[in-house]
This record gives sequence, C-alpha cells and structure tokens, in this order.
Amino acid sequence: MVVQADVVREGDDVLIYLDLRRTWLVRAVPGQELHTHKGVLRLSDIIGLPYGSRVRSSTGHEFVVLRPTIRDYVLKMRRATQIVYPKDMGVILAFTGMGPGWRVVEGGTGSGALTAFLAYHVRPGGRVFSYEVRPEFLEVARANLERAGLLDVVELKLADITEGIEEEGVDAVVLDIAAPWEAVPHAYEALRPSGSFISFSPTVDQVVKTVSALREHGFIAIEVVECLLRHIRAEPGKTRPEWLMRAHTGYMTFARKALRESI
Amino acid sequence: MVVQADVVREGDDVLIYLDLRRTWLVRAVPGQELHTHKGVLRLSDIIGLPYGSRVRSSTGHEFVVLRPTIRDYVLKMRRATQIVYPKDMGVILAFTGMGPGWRVVEGGTGSGALTAFLAYHVRPGGRVFSYEVRPEFLEVARANLERAGLLDVVELKLADITEGIEEEGVDAVVLDIAAPWEAVPHAYEALRPSGSFISFSPTVDQVVKTVSALREHGFIAIEVVECLLRHIRAEPGKTRPEWLMRAHTGYMTFARKALRESI
Amino acid sequence: MVVQADVVREGDDVLIYLDLRRTWLVRAVPGQELHTHKGVLRLSDIIGLPYGSRVRSSTGHEFVVLRPTIRDYVLKMRRATQIVYPKDMGVILAFTGMGPGWRVVEGGTGSGALTAFLAYHVRPGGRVFSYEVRPEFLEVARANLERAGLLDVVELKLADITEGIEEEGVDAVVLDIAAPWEAVPHAYEALRPSGSFISFSPTVDQVVKTVSALREHGFIAIEVVECLLRHIRAEPGKTRPEWLMRAHTGYMTFARKALRESI
Amino acid sequence: MVVQADVVREGDDVLIYLDLRRTWLVRAVPGQELHTHKGVLRLSDIIGLPYGSRVRSSTGHEFVVLRPTIRDYVLKMRRATQIVYPKDMGVILAFTGMGPGWRVVEGGTGSGALTAFLAYHVRPGGRVFSYEVRPEFLEVARANLERAGLLDVVELKLADITEGIEEEGVDAVVLDIAAPWEAVPHAYEALRPSGSFISFSPTVDQVVKTVSALREHGFIAIEVVECLLRHIRAEPGKTRPEWLMRAHTGYMTFARKALRESI
Repeated sequence: MVVQADVVREGDDVLIYLDLRRTWLVRAVPGQELHTHKGVLRLSDIIGLPYGSRVRSSTGHEFVVLRPTIRDYVLKMRRATQIVYPKDMGVILAFTGMGPGWRVVEGGTGSGALTAFLAYHVRPGGRVFSYEVRPEFLEVARANLERAGLLDVVELKLADITEGIEEEGVDAVVLDIAAPWEAVPHAYEALRPSGSFISFSPTVDQVVKTVSALREHGFIAIEVVECLLRHIRAEPGKTRPEWLMRAHTGYMTFARKALRESI
Repeated sequence: MVVQADVVREGDDVLIYLDLRRTWLVRAVPGQELHTHKGVLRLSDIIGLPYGSRVRSSTGHEFVVLRPTIRDYVLKMRRATQIVYPKDMGVILAFTGMGPGWRVVEGGTGSGALTAFLAYHVRPGGRVFSYEVRPEFLEVARANLERAGLLDVVELKLADITEGIEEEGVDAVVLDIAAPWEAVPHAYEALRPSGSFISFSPTVDQVVKTVSALREHGFIAIEVVECLLRHIRAEPGKTRPEWLMRAHTGYMTFARKALRESI
Repeated sequence: MVVQADVVREGDDVLIYLDLRRTWLVRAVPGQELHTHKGVLRLSDIIGLPYGSRVRSSTGHEFVVLRPTIRDYVLKMRRATQIVYPKDMGVILAFTGMGPGWRVVEGGTGSGALTAFLAYHVRPGGRVFSYEVRPEFLEVARANLERAGLLDVVELKLADITEGIEEEGVDAVVLDIAAPWEAVPHAYEALRPSGSFISFSPTVDQVVKTVSALREHGFIAIEVVECLLRHIRAEPGKTRPEWLMRAHTGYMTFARKALRESI
Repeated sequence: MVVQADVVREGDDVLIYLDLRRTWLVRAVPGQELHTHKGVLRLSDIIGLPYGSRVRSSTGHEFVVLRPTIRDYVLKMRRATQIVYPKDMGVILAFTGMGPGWRVVEGGTGSGALTAFLAYHVRPGGRVFSYEVRPEFLEVARANLERAGLLDVVELKLADITEGIEEEGVDAVVLDIAAPWEAVPHAYEALRPSGSFISFSPTVDQVVKTVSALREHGFIAIEVVECLLRHIRAEPGKTRPEWLMRAHTGYMTFARKALRESI
C-alpha cells in the first residue's frame, strides 16, 4: 500500500478523483475500464503516468490520478458492518500515542476498517491481533486488508474477545464490540502495565458499563470523549459551514492499566 | 521516548498521575523530588518499579507511574506559542495517512508540539523539515524535541517558509503560520505530485485566502474541517457531557497536489 | 390559530400525527379526506372529537389529532425560500425579550415563516411591519400568514428595506436579507433608543460586514452566535444522539441601539 | 418590567452596559451610586435621560444606559440554584408555541429564572403555577420575580409536584426537577389533551427514565434535544469562534398528551 514510485505501475491501486464526493479506488490493470456518469476511463492509459496527472474521460471530463491514502482504503472498503470513522481513528492515535512497533489487540474486526488503520500505523515492527466471532466478517476483513496490503501485519482470529485474550504484554487493546465491559478483565490481563485501553461505542449505556468495569478492574486515567467534525465551505464572500453533518458516530473511552496494589 | 522496558530505569521520563487534570512529566533521577500539593515523591524510589505502579507520597496520597505518550510530551511542553491540539493532530494523521517513512515539511515550528507529533509518526525512516523565522521559538522547540527524544528525526531551519522551501519531492507540507496562503506556491513546488497539503488556522479569513491560493495553484481535493471534542462524565445514574469545552482551536485545510496540465 | 376549545370544530386546523417525521396540517372540513401511505382519514370524522384523540385510518393505523402549534405552522408552510428554523427563532426571542406589544420591523418577508413566529409572539397589541422586494414572495407569505390566522398582526410591504424604513420608534428590527449591512443605517433610524437589532445570515461574510456596519452606526452590545440542535434517541440500554444533524442554518447577530453622542 | 417610556424614570430598572461581559442591573434611585472598576456612576444623573444614552463615570469611562430585557433579569437574578439558560428557554418557547394566555404548571421553581421567562411570555392573560419543595428557594424566587415585575403572573406553591398537581386543563407542564419521571403521571392528569410536556434535565439517565414514563402514560411526539450555542468573534480579517463555550446545560424532553384510548 505504501507506493513509493512517482509513476503509476501496473497493478498499483490508484484513486481516481472527480471531486470530493466522487472518487474511485481502482487497480491499474490493462484491459480494465472505469465507467462513471462522466464518461469512461481506460485504466491501461493511466499506467506509466505520474501520480497527480489530470486525465480526460471518453466524454472529455477531467479526473485526477491520486495515490490512495489509508483513509481512502478505509472509506472505500466493502462494509459488512458500521465502521469507525477516520476522525475517530485519528483521535485514538493522538490520545494513545499508538505508533510503529506497537502490539495491539483489537476486539471486533468487523469489516476490518479500524484494523487496517491500526495496522498501517504500527508498521514497521508492530502487529494487530484482531478477534471476531462471525466468520463472514472475518472474510470481508481479510479481503479488505489484503487489498490494502496490510494483511501481513494482522493476525485475524475467529474467537470471542469477551471470553479471553491469548496475547500478553500488549501495548493497547482496542474494542469495537457490543459489550465492551465483558472484555475489560481480559484487556487488563493482556495489557502490559501502563498500556492503553480504548473502546468505541455508539451508546451511552455501553460507555457507562464500560467505565464502571474499568474502575473495578484497576484502570486509571479514564476519559470519555466524542469527536464532532464539521466541514466548512470556504469561498470568498460566501463562507459557511456545510448544511449537514454526522451528529454522532460513537463515544471513545480511554484508560490506562495501573497495577492493582499500592506500594 | 519509546521506552520498551517494563520497569522504570534511571533517566527515564515518567508521567506521574494523580487524576486526569493533575499529572507531571518528570525524569527518574536519583536525588530529585516531585513536590505536589498532595505531598512529595522521591523519584529515586520510582527507579526499578514496574510501569503502572501505584506509589504513595509523603502524605500518603496515591499516584501512578505511567509511561508518557507523545500526547503527554505535547501537552507538557514548554510553550512559547499557542499549540495545535492533539485532537487536531489526530485528524491530520487520519486525513492524510501520514506515517512511517514520510518526508514532511512543516511551516511554523513554534514550540515544536506539532513537530514532535509529526516526527513521532514518520519514524522510522521519515523526516520533518521545520521552518521557523523566530530563533527564540526554535530554541524552545529544540529543547522540547530533545526532551521527547525526537530531535534526530527533525531538521530545524531558521528560515521563512513564505519565501521558499528547499526540500523537493516531499510527501506532505504542514503549515501553522499566520499567512499560509503565501506559502502555497512553495508548497506546490516542494510536494511530490499527489502529496498532501495541510494548513491549520484559527481564523476564517486565513482559511478563505488559503483555499483561494490552493485553487489557483493547481491543488485539488480541497477540504476544510473543524474538529470539536466533547468530554463525557460517565457515572451510573449521572452521565452527562462536561459543562465546558474548547469551542474552537482552528480550522484544518487539506488539499492534494495535482499536476497542472491536463493530459 | 389560538384554538381554545378542547374539541375539534368544523374549520379548525388540526395536526394529524403518525410519528415525529410524519404529520399533516389539515383543515377539519366535511367531505375532505387525508390520504397517507398508512390509509385514509375522513376529516369529517374528526369534527367533534376532543383534541388528543387517537383515531384509526381505513387500514387500521393509529393517528393522533393534535392542536397545531406555531412551530407546526412554520414547518408546514409553503416555502418559496429557505426559512429560519424554530431553534433560531427561539434564540431570537430569548436574546431580545421580544414579547406582547412589541412593534417589530422585519426585512425579508420571504415565505413568511419568521414573520408568523414574530407575529405570534407580539400579540396582543404588537405589530410586525415586513418588507419584501419580490411580490411573488409576498403572496406566498400572505397565504401562509392567513392560514395561521396571523395576517391581521402583520403589515406586508412591497418595499426594499435597504432603501429605507418608514416606521419610527420600533422595538426591534429583524433582518433576513442578502445584504443586511445595507439596512443597518435605516434600522438605526427606525429603532427607539435601546431597541434591538437582529440579523440572520448563513455566511460569515455577511456577519462580518454587518458587524462592521453596526459598529460604525452607533450600535452596542454586538453579539454573534450560532445555535446547534442535536436530537437524542432515548431508549433504555441504547441511548445515543441521532446520526445526522443540521450542521448549519445561519448566524444570528444581535445589537442594541445606543445614542450616538456621549453625555 | 415592560418599560414603555423612552426616558429613564425614577425607580426604573436600567441595565448599565460597559461591554458584553460587564453589565449591571440597577434601579434608578436618587442618592444611589454604582461603583465599578471603571469609576463611579451616580444613578440620580441617569434619571430623565433617554434610554440608549452614553454616560461617563467619575473616571471618564463611557457606559450606556439600556432598558433591561427579560434575559437580563434572568441572567442577573440572585441564584440559589443552577438556572436554565436563555438559549434553552428560547427552544422551549419555539418548540411548544407557548405564548400569551397560556396556563402553565412549572415543577421546580428554583431561583425563579425559568419561572420569570415563562411568566413574561404568557402575559397577558396567562398564568404560571410554580411548585417548589424548598421554602428557601421560593423566597429567592419571589424576590427575583418581584424585581422583574412578574410576580402577579405567577402562583408560587410550596408543594411537591411529584406528589400531585392541583391545576387542571393546563396548556403546558414544564419540569426542572431531579426526578421528572415521578411527575409524569401528574402532568398527564393536569394537561388538557394535546397539551405540551417539557422537561429540562442535565443527565442522560434522567432523560431515559422520563421518556420511558412518558411512553407508559400515553404521551406522544416525544422528542429529546440538546442545544449548543457558540459565540463568534466577528472582526474583519480575524473572524473565528470564541475559544470556550458551555458544552452542556441540559437535555430538553418534549411530548404531547394524547388521549389513552383509540377511537
């Protein structure tokens, strides 16, 4: 996924950009075409072009060939489940300091969107162990991770994280499951002391139960936040926020593992 | 800064935690003491303890010894200027896909907070070239980066980014300066095609001028967002958002470099 | 519109309620029917029923007969233009203290939604003088106000408020026009000293120009706010904010008229 | 409180304005002085001046004499309790259509702030019946209402609204109490069919319990909202939202009384 060349090579994933709302993540393969309502693009024509090139479709509309980012992969993934949004992923990174080399346990692989983001950021040297109870989700996630070139950073596990975590001494446990509080004792065992717990939950009730479980099990620095992102339409003389926004994605609960006994 | 040991070693930075609002970032050095309104901690007593340990001050209050994260370093830095907030740093990461190996130009080193965050996330293999016109800020930033163990990832430059950028083919240009629009043409030259432009600005006027400059200079995928973070007080029977919040830090403008001519 | 009876009389407006998103404002007239995707209601059957009655449609679905509020009239109005939202109307009332007996000048009648709300709240004894340059909007507004039973409280004027205001000594001037700053000098002349100026504008640029004009013309207590309303889905065990919200309607600018010369 | 004269008369309440954050609500009485950090104002000097006059203090600073609004009375009240904010009061008005002539029951008089706002808006002809269990709050409220000239519109009742409501056929019941769900059955009895229920609560738990009680007792059109107000600093070239805002005041729950049996 980390394309280093400045020129599109055969087999590269590229993001075809028309405008902010209309982009396509496609593979530059000879013989393939991208059909849009603004005409057809022959993908073989793109091979060999520099990234950033402006190309024209069969109907003469201009598209730009971009190098896809991890956000593009996340947003374009096949979705079997609701996914965590990039804004929230960013807050998880910023609040925990998750980075290269981290060993992270994830509960609730789902479609693999958050998995991919975590995997992207723990490279090189890190690893994501991702638990999921529904095999059909694991298959979707596997395909999504493979496409993003991140499958080798991830260990997908068909197992219920509320029943136990096999890994030990991990740097972080990230949960996106229906009953995160049931995984809290296992997260405590799996984390190295001072390690980070993160849970993403859409409802207040999940947050309250999770925070109670965290308090009970010796976690500290418990912090619950929600992140609202508003887009601005900036145009001289007519600048204003966009009319609509996502009012809610979920709450993020953060905590750190402390040792239980006082010295 | 990436402390791998599970035990505090002499010379380690540790975060002494009392509660979410009261934490201290100190170096574990024999002979030093941390004086708080909840008593005194002898830092030599901490050396050799596992991270996550609960220790007691001279007055018997419990503190926890945590491994500091990059967020802790950022929030505890000596500040010569207003700094970018971790929530916004997270959005920058999530929206651009900045990660290990990236070469990034920063305009406006300021206190070095964003510099440190960028440096942390482009490791290993990446590099941050940071421009600042005020030598006194550069000195503050240098000290802050050194403390965070990230100075070797950063090249601090006493130069005005609105007059030019020396680097070429960089993956991203990040601006936190008063007149970002003046650096837009230089950012365009410095970026590899498809690379990311990011500008952080507190005022609407800065955003509008920057967006106009971006449009003029061949950037695409221009997107302006603001990120609002709300803390929730989760307690069974009394859950509610906190009373106060930061209503504004700044707007983030994102764009991608496209080649100028259509093919 | 102020229906005092507890029973639906022939000719009354009633709000037929299915759920929060599906309501109909209809007149209880014999021979009329309301056709919905949940069956047909004969409006003659409703006459004589107490307000609050639960009735069944031809397909057996339950509807409730409610007395319409001014908010219902506003939201159900025929719209020739974007209207001010009830949340913002509420803030205008709360910030100015507009109430019974006030004489109010409105610039930009539009569809008459805000006009109706103002008229409703200055009764009894007050009056709204509403300026509009487009005769076709005035006709829409007239019909909307008539339906809401508020036309006798309003004087609709085919005139450009940026060219002058005929009334004198009014308690408030409320603007919802494209160039509110051009009406500021006239608002100053029309207002009694200490009277309230209010402007509703979608863009930042309108706000900045209006605030500058207000400062120039002797207004004080200038205050700009935006009001965000978030709906909560409250259900035991699954409480959370709704997924989507209106991110922006407009900014409200408030000011008070001070005399120009210091004593 | 509805001062109709354009000139300050002896005994009038006036709002002395320095800037948005520094205002004083005082009575224009001979012999009294207002002492501020910007000098002294002799209130006898103000009597006879037109409202809107700019006057100078002993140190030469300029103040403006404004006619106080109901918002000023509310914000300047002596507070024995946390009060409902004007923004939320405005939403209550806009969502219910409460206006002249309404008979309203309030549960939880507290300091009388919301009471005063309701009283102001049901005039003329309307009435507020306000229940409070703590006599010391009732005394504070009585003084606050008297000062605002609204005491004659209000019936203050030393009684527990969770034990019953004496009034019948009222247009609205407004609650600002710790356990609003306990008053729901009484609110149902007191309301005329189609009448409005409103509850203001700081915590999610209160909302959930109240909504459950409303569903059980035959209420419909149940709607929960929170209102966020953000102030904007509008200045040419430097416009931005203010740095801080109130992140939470409370949730507002709205409902309408439907008859219990289907027809």
